[in-house]
Amino acid sequence: MKNKKGVKLWNKAKKIIPGGSQLLSKRAEMFLPEQWPSYFKKAKGVFVWDLDGNKYIDTLASIGACILGYADPDVNNAVKKVIDQGNISTLNCPEEIKLAELLCKLHSWADMVRYARGGGEAMAIAVRIARAYSGKDKIAFCGYHGWQDWYLAANLGNNKNLKEHLLPGLDPRGVPKGLRGTAIPFSYNKIEELENIVSKNKDIGVIIMEPLRNHEPMNNFLQKVRRIANKSGAVLIFDEITIGWRLSYGGAHLKYGVNPDIAVFAKGISNGFPMAAIIGKKKIMQSAQTTFISSSYWTERIGTVAALASIGKMINKKVPRHLLRIGGMFMRGMKECAKKHNIRLLVSGLSPMPHLSFDYGEDGQTIKTLYTQEMLKREFLVGSVLYVTYSLKEKHIRKYLNAADEVFCLLGQAIKDNKVRALLEGPTAHVGFKRLT
Amino acid sequence: MKNKKGVKLWNKAKKIIPGGSQLLSKRAEMFLPEQWPSYFKKAKGVFVWDLDGNKYIDTLASIGACILGYADPDVNNAVKKVIDQGNISTLNCPEEIKLAELLCKLHSWADMVRYARGGGEAMAIAVRIARAYSGKDKIAFCGYHGWQDWYLAANLGNNKNLKEHLLPGLDPRGVPKGLRGTAIPFSYNKIEELENIVSKNKDIGVIIMEPLRNHEPMNNFLQKVRRIANKSGAVLIFDEITIGWRLSYGGAHLKYGVNPDIAVFAKGISNGFPMAAIIGKKKIMQSAQTTFISSSYWTERIGTVAALASIGKMINKKVPRHLLRIGGMFMRGMKECAKKHNIRLLVSGLSPMPHLSFDYGEDGQTIKTLYTQEMLKREFLVGSVLYVTYSLKEKHIRKYLNAADEVFCLLGQAIKDNKVRALLEGPTAHVGFKRLT
Repeated sequence: MKNKKGVKLWNKAKKIIPGGSQLLSKRAEMFLPEQWPSYFKKAKGVFVWDLDGNKYIDTLASIGACILGYADPDVNNAVKKVIDQGNISTLNCPEEIKLAELLCKLHSWADMVRYARGGGEAMAIAVRIARAYSGKDKIAFCGYHGWQDWYLAANLGNNKNLKEHLLPGLDPRGVPKGLRGTAIPFSYNKIEELENIVSKNKDIGVIIMEPLRNHEPMNNFLQKVRRIANKSGAVLIFDEITIGWRLSYGGAHLKYGVNPDIAVFAKGISNGFPMAAIIGKKKIMQSAQTTFISSSYWTERIGTVAALASIGKMINKKVPRHLLRIGGMFMRGMKECAKKHNIRLLVSGLSPMPHLSFDYGEDGQTIKTLYTQEMLKREFLVGSVLYVTYSLKEKHIRKYLNAADEVFCLLGQAIKDNKVRALLEGPTAHVGFKRLT
Repeated sequence: MKNKKGVKLWNKAKKIIPGGSQLLSKRAEMFLPEQWPSYFKKAKGVFVWDLDGNKYIDTLASIGACILGYADPDVNNAVKKVIDQGNISTLNCPEEIKLAELLCKLHSWADMVRYARGGGEAMAIAVRIARAYSGKDKIAFCGYHGWQDWYLAANLGNNKNLKEHLLPGLDPRGVPKGLRGTAIPFSYNKIEELENIVSKNKDIGVIIMEPLRNHEPMNNFLQKVRRIANKSGAVLIFDEITIGWRLSYGGAHLKYGVNPDIAVFAKGISNGFPMAAIIGKKKIMQSAQTTFISSSYWTERIGTVAALASIGKMINKKVPRHLLRIGGMFMRGMKECAKKHNIRLLVSGLSPMPHLSFDYGEDGQTIKTLYTQEMLKREFLVGSVLYVTYSLKEKHIRKYLNAADEVFCLLGQAIKDNKVRALLEGPTAHVGFKRLT
């Protein structure tokens, strides 16, 4: 194995950090147990260098956080400048107002903005504001929204509620039992589920969803959700943490012409520097003043300046257009490649973040793990999703497709000979959440 | 007024950011309404420059966040280096293990570490882990612990519970009513209050407190709390966000020889770069794996590297010793100065963060505001607390005492002539929480 140092350090990490990583999706076990490089020394553009000095094309972009690519020179220069000038003080940073004005200009329905430094906490702020405004505690939600109590409460009393949104079988240990019944899930594109929730629960104060993630909205789904929110008086929150900035200059909802009452941005907004923004209508956002929402590090200016620089560049370089084009090229290429080698590969999702899965029932996960192993040997970090970035160019896709062509050849033979497990040099990757020891 | 730009921008901010600032303690109204500079262009060491180019000695150190002083060259260089090398990727940053080992070395009772990027969210993580471990939802707490639901729940049904810990009269709008009764306050140094809570509530799973803040523990208070936690099986969490790193190399509890089960650090650990760490005993920390605690930005490496550099320098330069010495000099000087001018000034608190208050009953707040106004004219940013930093040297204290001498002369006369309000060029500063329009 040529990435021994990373494998060794990961084993050490699990002894001193519960779960090994701060993010479930960055655990070695989610990709390639006992073989994944796990740690980086350097990252630039599409490239990552591991602790042994191996260089990879990283198709995961820090699980989508860096839309421009790693260590973008324009964003980095803006950040380093404010570090030299001091990134925090007792006084506030004026860039907060500039960014608020920009976000409200890009989203003409929004009037006011609050900031945080991570997606999960930004969603908790949005929920607090929405509950404060509506005076009602119950939430109907769809999709993935982080780790906080309001969301995990969905699994209190029924640990299948978060199955399709977060993970199967999650036991919400440590979430107060008094929150039972406060978060009720509905499925994407199934308006009747939301209708049913709202008609059975007169006290739904908040509706929360990703405007889209893997599928386009069908039959005016978003418009219908908006109408239900209007009719019931619920605050509508769009979680744009993952999809935002990939389809349009701001929230994906801009593309579909349906406006929420609050939208939340994190990941994509600042190219890998901790930052989050909660934008919303004035009458609702002002409810933040009827409760207490305050934290020291929300006032520092690296995140604010990184967001300004990232948004500026995404607009300037027409980044969503690039993501669409490169992602489309990848999806077409992979479909062709799979067809050529007679591999049952499902290529789905949106062009800026195409999704791959191997349609082999229970064996699919082992085949996927072997694919990850063989792509790693060819110096690619791959996962179920490819996050297109501005740094990922046609030449990288061509190189990827050449590597996939080789791997699919090997994979096709292994499937035929029933040798997938035998070729795998470690365990199969985990599906969802497992305790690591 | 020589700081017009900041005053103007603050008025604009309040129209686009609910409450104007992300931190209650950075609102102009908390210091000097309609006169406070509010925004900074540059910060270095003890100095801050406002938007009009005025230079101040800032005695508040970003409300205590920067123990080394602003834009510390050693911390900044470490941070800029990792920005050049990429601050995030799909792989994890190896510095996480180095920092975890250092924290466990400094706190020999701790075995495992998790990270976050802010104090409020770090406390919510600690609470989740402790509740997951104990299986009980109820919390007994003392002190200030941020904005999250678990804490504000104390005021559900009784908005006086957080009076002495956070703010008077806070209505916990937006906090789910199902959390009522889950957070019960006790007062510092009053062991009988905690005893009473634990004997009346058999289901207290967690005890949370700042090991100290404004007063030293009396009559073995910390030892007694530890014994109650042991006896009741509650997880003991020390919130070291404010006091940590000021009295010792790590948590203040090290100085008192009482170990918690979990300790939480933020603010002081990384000299103004967003970072937080939750450290704890293995059997308890591993409960993080029985629930879902995961967020993208907790994996970036600026915070981690800033913490390593800050801790290294605090140890190397024996910073707690400096804070004690300078703070002691300030406290003695202020007491003398007040005595000389016959001002009833109470100088209290610990040397690294002395507290000032004017003992004039209802008039105290107006006198304090006039003091802030006159110190601002003499190019000092002052508040109720002075946060000593490594950048704050004897010469700055001498300069401060000279300015205070002038201002106390003026103040003494104004009090005598009943002209305090007349000399104030704007409204009196707010006490606690008020809606801003």
